[in-house]
Amino acid sequence: MKISIEKCVQSLKEHDNILILTHAHPDGDTLGAGFALCRALLKLGKKARVICADEIPSKFDGVFESFEMPEFEEDYVVAVDVGTPNLLGDLCDKYGSRVDLCIDHHKSNTEYAKELLLDDAAAACETIFEIIKMLGVEIDKAIADCLFTGITTDTGCFRYASTTARTFAIAAELVSLGADNGTINRVMFETKTKQYAAIERLALEGMQFFCDDRVCIITITQEMYNKTGAQEQDTEAIAPLTRQIEGVEVGLTIKEKPNGECKCSIRTFESVDASVLAASFGGGGHKQASACRFECSVEEAKARLVAKCEELLK
Amino acid sequence: MKISIEKCVQSLKEHDNILILTHAHPDGDTLGAGFALCRALLKLGKKARVICADEIPSKFDGVFESFEMPEFEEDYVVAVDVGTPNLLGDLCDKYGSRVDLCIDHHKSNTEYAKELLLDDAAAACETIFEIIKMLGVEIDKAIADCLFTGITTDTGCFRYASTTARTFAIAAELVSLGADNGTINRVMFETKTKQYAAIERLALEGMQFFCDDRVCIITITQEMYNKTGAQEQDTEAIAPLTRQIEGVEVGLTIKEKPNGECKCSIRTFESVDASVLAASFGGGGHKQASACRFECSVEEAKARLVAKCEELLK
Repeated sequence: MKISIEKCVQSLKEHDNILILTHAHPDGDTLGAGFALCRALLKLGKKARVICADEIPSKFDGVFESFEMPEFEEDYVVAVDVGTPNLLGDLCDKYGSRVDLCIDHHKSNTEYAKELLLDDAAAACETIFEIIKMLGVEIDKAIADCLFTGITTDTGCFRYASTTARTFAIAAELVSLGADNGTINRVMFETKTKQYAAIERLALEGMQFFCDDRVCIITITQEMYNKTGAQEQDTEAIAPLTRQIEGVEVGLTIKEKPNGECKCSIRTFESVDASVLAASFGGGGHKQASACRFECSVEEAKARLVAKCEELLK
Repeated sequence: MKISIEKCVQSLKEHDNILILTHAHPDGDTLGAGFALCRALLKLGKKARVICADEIPSKFDGVFESFEMPEFEEDYVVAVDVGTPNLLGDLCDKYGSRVDLCIDHHKSNTEYAKELLLDDAAAACETIFEIIKMLGVEIDKAIADCLFTGITTDTGCFRYASTTARTFAIAAELVSLGADNGTINRVMFETKTKQYAAIERLALEGMQFFCDDRVCIITITQEMYNKTGAQEQDTEAIAPLTRQIEGVEVGLTIKEKPNGECKCSIRTFESVDASVLAASFGGGGHKQASACRFECSVEEAKARLVAKCEELLK
C-alpha cells in the first residue's frame, strides 16, 4: 500500500527495534539513506541497524563515519532505495516477503512492502532528509554527510536531468549543516585508482557503435579485470561514459561475470526509456539509468540488446 | 579600488551605455556573467553589449539564447571574470587600461580596473546573480540559463571544493526560475564529439607520472590535433582528468600551440596552490585551477614544471 510521508514518519515513531535493509551491490544512495536514517533513529533513543547483502565498497570509508549499531531482535523492517525484493541479494530469502516499510524513489518499485513511500525524488536521500526533519531529529554533520553522499552519487554530481530545484535546495541545507561536499565529491567522482584508469582505457579502446551510431556499447570482460587488476566494484564509473559521445541515445555497458553470464547497465537520454529496455530483459530502474542481467554470454547479450534497441529507436 | 556590491550596483545604475568585456578563450562563467548582466541592463532600458576577443565555442549555442545587442558609443566599460588585462586577449590594447568596473572572483585579480568588486564566490555568475537582484530586475529563464551555465561550468558541475551552500542555494533558485539544468549539464559535461573522444584516448595513453606519482602530466601536441581532427577549444575537459588518479596532487595538461610554444593548465588539491605554481611562470588563477604560458617547447615546459613541482611538494 502506498502511504504519505506523514504516515511513514508516524510508522517509524511507533516502532523501537528497526532493521534497515539496503540493496545488494550497494551504492551511495542506499547506504547514505540507510545510515542517515539509522543515525536519526538512534538519536531518538530507538534501536536500529543497517544491513546489506554485500560488502560496502572501500571508497565509502572516507565519507561515512563508522558508528556503533546495536544488536537486537527486530520488530520492524524498513528497506531503503530497494525497488524489488530480488535487489536485496542474499537477504531476499529471509526478508524479501517481510518488509514492513519501503522508502524508495524508483517508479518501477513493485510494491512488495506492506507500506511504500514512493517519492518522485532524484535520490532516496532527499526523502530521508525530509523524514528526519519531520521526526524532529537535528541533522548533524555525520547525517548531512550521509545524505549528501546519496544525493550526489544518484544524480551524477547534480548532472542528471533528474536533479531539481529541491535537490539543490537540500544540498544547500546539507552543506550549511556541515556536509563536506568537496571531499565527498572528490572521493566519489574525482578519484580513479590506477587499476580503474587502466580498465577505463581498455574499455574506451573497445567501444562499439550500432544503429547508425545511436547505440554505444562498452564491454568489460573477465580478461580485462585480470589484465588490469580492477574489480567489478571499481567500474561503476564506466557506464556514464557510453552516453557521452555526440549522437548516442543509448549507452550500454555489458560486464562479464566470473561464470560467463553478464549484466548490463543502460544509460539513455529522452528518446529511449531505459527502464523499458531493462524490463524487456527482466530488469528495471529509472528512465535514464537502468540495469538487467543475462544468463548468456556477452556476445549473445549484446546481440539481443542491439535488436531491442533497433526496435525502440524506430 | 575595491568596492562593495552596493557601490557596484549604484555605478551600474548611473550609466546608460555599458560595454561588457569577457575574457579571451571564453568559458561558461565569463560568457554567462556577461550575457546575464547585459540582458538585465537591457531590461532596465539601458544600452549594453558583450564583446569577446575570441569566437564563442559552438557548444554554447545550445544554452545561451541569442538576443539583439544594440550598437552605441560606450561611456562605461565593465569586465566580468577577467583577472588581468592580458586575459582580454586582442581587446587588451584597446580596453586594458580603461576598464571602469571589474566584477571578478579570482583572488589573483591585479586590480587593474578603476573599481573592483572582488567576491569570494565559486563563479562570477554567483555575484552577477546578486547584482541583478539588487538592480531590481526579474530573473527570467534566459538570464537563469546564463547564470546556471556559468556556475555549473566553473564548479565542474558542483564538484569542486569551491562549491558552497550559497552556490547550491543560488542553483536551486535558478532552476526554480526556469534554468534548464538537465540540458545545460548535458551539453557542458556529457557531450563528447567523436574527435574529442579520440584525442582524449590519445591523451590518456600518453599520461606520464613524476615526483613519486604525485604529479601527472598529459601532453597534447599539434600532431594529436591533426590526427584526430579535434581543435584546441574541444579539449577543455582534458585538464580535470590529470587530477583524478589516486595519489596525484598536481595535474598538468600541456598543450602545444601551432607556433611550437605551449600553455599549461594546472589542477591541484589542497597540498599545492595552483595559482602559486602558475605565478612562478607568469600565469594565475585559483588555488586548485590555474594556467600559464611558455615561450618554449612542450618538453622544456614539462622539465621546468616538474622541477617547480618537486620544490613545492617538498
